[in-house]
Amino acid sequence: MTAPLRLGIAGLGTVGTGVVKIVRQKANLLAQRAGRAIEITAVSARSRDKDRGVSLTGYAWEDDPVKLATRDDVDVFVELMGGSDGPAKAATEAAIDAGKDVVTANKALLALHGNGLAQSAEDAGHVLRFEAAVAGGIPVIKSLTEGLAGNEITRVMGVMNGTCNYILTRMQSAGLPYDEVFEEANQLGYLEADPTLDVGGIDAGHKLALLASIAFGTQVDFDGVSLEGIQNITIEDIHQAADMGYRIKLLGVARKTGRGLEQRMSPCLVPASSPLGQLEGGTNMVVLEGDAVEQVVLRGPGAGMGPTASAVMGDVMDIARGLRISTFGIPAKELAETSPATAATPVPYYLRMALHDKPGALAKVATVLGNAGVSIDRMRQYRHDDETAPVLIVTHKTAPAALDEALTEMTNLDVLTGAPVALRIESV
Amino acid sequence: MTAPLRLGIAGLGTVGTGVVKIVRQKANLLAQRAGRAIEITAVSARSRDKDRGVSLTGYAWEDDPVKLATRDDVDVFVELMGGSDGPAKAATEAAIDAGKDVVTANKALLALHGNGLAQSAEDAGHVLRFEAAVAGGIPVIKSLTEGLAGNEITRVMGVMNGTCNYILTRMQSAGLPYDEVFEEANQLGYLEADPTLDVGGIDAGHKLALLASIAFGTQVDFDGVSLEGIQNITIEDIHQAADMGYRIKLLGVARKTGRGLEQRMSPCLVPASSPLGQLEGGTNMVVLEGDAVEQVVLRGPGAGMGPTASAVMGDVMDIARGLRISTFGIPAKELAETSPATAATPVPYYLRMALHDKPGALAKVATVLGNAGVSIDRMRQYRHDDETAPVLIVTHKTAPAALDEALTEMTNLDVLTGAPVALRIESV
Repeated sequence: MTAPLRLGIAGLGTVGTGVVKIVRQKANLLAQRAGRAIEITAVSARSRDKDRGVSLTGYAWEDDPVKLATRDDVDVFVELMGGSDGPAKAATEAAIDAGKDVVTANKALLALHGNGLAQSAEDAGHVLRFEAAVAGGIPVIKSLTEGLAGNEITRVMGVMNGTCNYILTRMQSAGLPYDEVFEEANQLGYLEADPTLDVGGIDAGHKLALLASIAFGTQVDFDGVSLEGIQNITIEDIHQAADMGYRIKLLGVARKTGRGLEQRMSPCLVPASSPLGQLEGGTNMVVLEGDAVEQVVLRGPGAGMGPTASAVMGDVMDIARGLRISTFGIPAKELAETSPATAATPVPYYLRMALHDKPGALAKVATVLGNAGVSIDRMRQYRHDDETAPVLIVTHKTAPAALDEALTEMTNLDVLTGAPVALRIESV
Repeated sequence: MTAPLRLGIAGLGTVGTGVVKIVRQKANLLAQRAGRAIEITAVSARSRDKDRGVSLTGYAWEDDPVKLATRDDVDVFVELMGGSDGPAKAATEAAIDAGKDVVTANKALLALHGNGLAQSAEDAGHVLRFEAAVAGGIPVIKSLTEGLAGNEITRVMGVMNGTCNYILTRMQSAGLPYDEVFEEANQLGYLEADPTLDVGGIDAGHKLALLASIAFGTQVDFDGVSLEGIQNITIEDIHQAADMGYRIKLLGVARKTGRGLEQRMSPCLVPASSPLGQLEGGTNMVVLEGDAVEQVVLRGPGAGMGPTASAVMGDVMDIARGLRISTFGIPAKELAETSPATAATPVPYYLRMALHDKPGALAKVATVLGNAGVSIDRMRQYRHDDETAPVLIVTHKTAPAALDEALTEMTNLDVLTGAPVALRIESV
């Protein structure tokens, strides 16, 4: 039997503790599957004394994750600290320099520094894996990079922030406004310390940038992700969308177009009867589309101790079994540079605006839309309890540029009581 | 760059042709991803002259797949002929003996001979892969064996015969009886030459036996699969189930119990709002449950040229990239022998029976159920246009043995006009 694979784990929060539990409790099963023992030799965390509900007996302790990363008795550096810079980055770089394989759950680190880290690891002949960084327990990186390796990928889509999906589906089921559900999610501990990471779409945007790189063989380009959060979604939007047979999801979409790489993370309307539309609560879903396979949909828990540790262990087991694969599916030095797509494909839009309740207001709006070439499919005006008249419009397929022009024109008129909301209707 | 990986493809039907297309049309992409070229050196099929819409120029031709399997210029024997015995088996054995890696889409071959073939391949230090044999384009073998390798698997479930799901969902949507939709499916070419393979659950049972082996580290035991087809499902069953918030699916379920390995392929009721319940048409779905990951659901096309070829290519690319993994996740010689579970976990059942329209008939049935310890949750009797009185019963959780006893008793009474139908209600 091959020598044991020795892990050094940096970060003993929820995920790190989960990994320790699996390695301790399933030693025999893991060894049988991998053909060699999986051992933890050393760990590192902020506090040594914290009770984590799992024994650390037999593991060397390092206060400094960089020291852990470079220990002679560590084959794989498992980075579970988080944070795009600081110790996580320093320790990962040190591990690569010291000739270790690396497994990380850190989407921010890879979204911002993935190209360089991958290239360093590959130059040194080592692997850098990150299944746990995208969509928690769902083996999506593996499915895309390996399972669908015979496909030209045409589109990837996903609901990859459980907190946002919790908020949106809870608003719908309980009929509560955004602020109230946001506060509820906060009380439940669902939100990051900086909630913008969740509700602003940044966390999900990190994940989308990683998926896009693997799907299209392009350099990770988080700056190229067009980001829009769910903060402006009202309970009226949700009810009206439902009324028309849609659900609102914070949806990431990446596709390669003739005009560049399109990466969008934004609230979209999707058909209520589609798998994405039916996704409730904190669950994640990723849709992979390829020219041969057509469409594969993966659904599972996007966070939590067990699911995330499961994904980390998937990477560890691959390394133990000898799978040596490029970080993003093709060698990092061959990843294409691509510019963000300047204009996106025409799609139907859902528009909501509140008009001053005055004669002629609606006519003005309709004229602006018509002049910009935005064609109306359905429109609905309804009574509100204040002096405003909310108007909902579903457009025919509209080029984003035309829509932008119309929205700008509209806000220049003296008829809207606030900024209009425009959401894409994504065909799924 | 490593030497090219040379494929010998036996069988040029839909799937084989799909594989040839991918290899010819995406040579550069595949080479970039695998770090080496993927080449076809030789092919074999029944007819050399058939127009397949793809060029075979540059490939050696073999009339005999066994000769193809043992050619010096073949590294990977790709078996796409089908059939559990005969040429497919002979050629696969020959390939293994000749020291080739093997990729196959042949579920019947592996369900019946997988243990022996896997052991021969592993003894020779070669791999035998079969992603395309289960659930078409869905990378389910990979997800289970590799992605979830850190989990103890607790249950696997799946809708893995698209034809059956097409028939069941079409009955519901069009309100047509089984025979009519069966004939329709036949006209559309959806059925195997022997339709029992589809509607009798045999094809899906093969797939379940393979999944169970991987999930639980047990020898493939197709004989241990409790098989029941969809032939007795009536349009009334479908309507009544829908009325109670359920859908009927030909569902495979495997779980390891204290009493052995439970493998069932049978029509079951599942909640209409669950991912399984929402699955329409010919699409497949597999649900994987593990102690760490909780639940992952994979959905995608279960058949067809592109999706199946995509799965075959996933295996080919793994071999090209150097992944060497045991056929069923752990070495074949370590796969546990297990006996089929003698009694299954208690679950609620849906019962349908037709009573002679005579006083006292229902009382007799209720008495029999009560005596056997089968407790009734809901019951409904409705008018029919002939002399029978259809009765529907949903039971509380019932041990299968108790139910069997009751059903036997019942058929001995002179009150039923035919055999009663009993379907499990699976919690998903």
